Amino acid sequence: MTAVQIVEVGPRDGLQNESRHLSPSVRSELVVRLAEAGLSQIEAVSFVHPGRVPQMAGAEEVLERVRAKLPSPPALLGLVLNEKGFERALAAGVQHVRYAFPATEGFARANQNATVAESVALALHLISRARAAGVRVGIVLATSFGCPFDGRVTPAHALKIAEGVARAAPDELVFADTIGVGTPHAVREIIGGAVAFGVPDLSIGAHFHNTRNTGYANAVAAVEAGASILDSSVGGIGGCPFAPRATGNVATEDLGYLLREMDVQTGLNLEALMEVSRWLEGQLGRELPGMLYKAGDFPGS
Amino acid sequence: MTAVQIVEVGPRDGLQNESRHLSPSVRSELVVRLAEAGLSQIEAVSFVHPGRVPQMAGAEEVLERVRAKLPSPPALLGLVLNEKGFERALAAGVQHVRYAFPATEGFARANQNATVAESVALALHLISRARAAGVRVGIVLATSFGCPFDGRVTPAHALKIAEGVARAAPDELVFADTIGVGTPHAVREIIGGAVAFGVPDLSIGAHFHNTRNTGYANAVAAVEAGASILDSSVGGIGGCPFAPRATGNVATEDLGYLLREMDVQTGLNLEALMEVSRWLEGQLGRELPGMLYKAGDFPGS
Repeated sequence: MTAVQIVEVGPRDGLQNESRHLSPSVRSELVVRLAEAGLSQIEAVSFVHPGRVPQMAGAEEVLERVRAKLPSPPALLGLVLNEKGFERALAAGVQHVRYAFPATEGFARANQNATVAESVALALHLISRARAAGVRVGIVLATSFGCPFDGRVTPAHALKIAEGVARAAPDELVFADTIGVGTPHAVREIIGGAVAFGVPDLSIGAHFHNTRNTGYANAVAAVEAGASILDSSVGGIGGCPFAPRATGNVATEDLGYLLREMDVQTGLNLEALMEVSRWLEGQLGRELPGMLYKAGDFPGS
Repeated sequence: MTAVQIVEVGPRDGLQNESRHLSPSVRSELVVRLAEAGLSQIEAVSFVHPGRVPQMAGAEEVLERVRAKLPSPPALLGLVLNEKGFERALAAGVQHVRYAFPATEGFARANQNATVAESVALALHLISRARAAGVRVGIVLATSFGCPFDGRVTPAHALKIAEGVARAAPDELVFADTIGVGTPHAVREIIGGAVAFGVPDLSIGAHFHNTRNTGYANAVAAVEAGASILDSSVGGIGGCPFAPRATGNVATEDLGYLLREMDVQTGLNLEALMEVSRWLEGQLGRELPGMLYKAGDFPGS
């Protein structure tokens, strides 16, 4: 039996793509409910300008409320897209920062107004700053499998960029299928290739969107290729700004079902997670893409 | 590069679980549109009592209309659940009959008012009758991965029943995850085990429902374990009578996307299939579970 670290990204990647905006109070309640359902790592906030991503306004307040409610909170991850965000994260007491940048020039230009080379340089700089500050740091390589602007991305291209970052030894390196185009062959090549970098103490992760119904097959491929971290969002919340009718991340409870049935330990309480999705359905005012909370666990389980 | 035979079951398994009932005329138009999108095998009808499954009423009319519209129709499969249905299928000129029965006593009793042993005996009888009549015959083993009444089913149990049928040499043997509980470990064990029966000219197939979001991962596992047939329904139509809010089969176009990206040939025209889903959405008056027709193909493809 193996084990995988699930990183819940619903409060961040999920909610930032929902049309209904939840208050910091409700967002903190979501984080608390997720922690109580067994999630030990939760990407709770992102430090971006509220004018740009209004869904994420009040990151500091979300964290304060969670800490006030939970005497021993789970690891609360904060996403940053630039150095200013990194400084906000440190000031807010975040102990695990993630910096995300894309593998493709088209996306880098459109989303971060930078080149990929500039983004790699910033990644190396932030890894160094995180080390100095004594906080954990993860690097997320977005558009690792394909880009809405540049189209197909070869595993060799993603791995080349990733290797330069990996050599600086962040705590984790996560390959993200930002627009949900990846399939298991590419997943095996990328995850297997990153594991083969052989960087000590570097955890390799994967972040899948189920935009085209390939997310769960990709998750299986990633675990079998050696990934030790999988991102997911409760209820599969979120969407894709590049495909307005599409869905979000793989759903945490559906992924937990799949992994449990494959003898992979996650520490998740599936019944409690389904209850979070039912509650969240009410908060967001729409049916969520996750299926387990509608179908129920294996009959007789 | 390998190839897989996709069997479109939307007009049968899909529509029989939809609340809106389509007329034989519309159902025949669906079959014609699917044939024009590249599907060479379509389970078009089932020969069941219309009082029991009203969605399937008028099987003969559906077939007649398709034959009138298409000078060279694809293989049109007809599902039967008993000998009376088999006789109707022969009378209607069906050249490829499928007989389905469950691997579990609870389901056999509830759904077919028979024991599993009686169902196996009928399978052997129908294989023999199909041979005599010169028509192709497939056996579908329902609830191969789990049962709404009996719970978990071990691969050894499903394989034991399957082997007895396989020795009678039908043209195909299809393992169905009727309630969508299966996961890749079980799929590999069952499909691998059936391939290892070593029956000449027996095609091994799999039929997955995406009830708990495991269907596409299962499809990948099945193909890699040696399955040469996969069932699917356009748009992922259908549902699950045992889980009212759940979805249906894996979607043909989503499966086609996944397989194309893994270098598995299917002969499908994805753009044409997405257009069928958009048309069908209008006919059924609801959004379909399939995702590709909402998200679109790989950007730049």
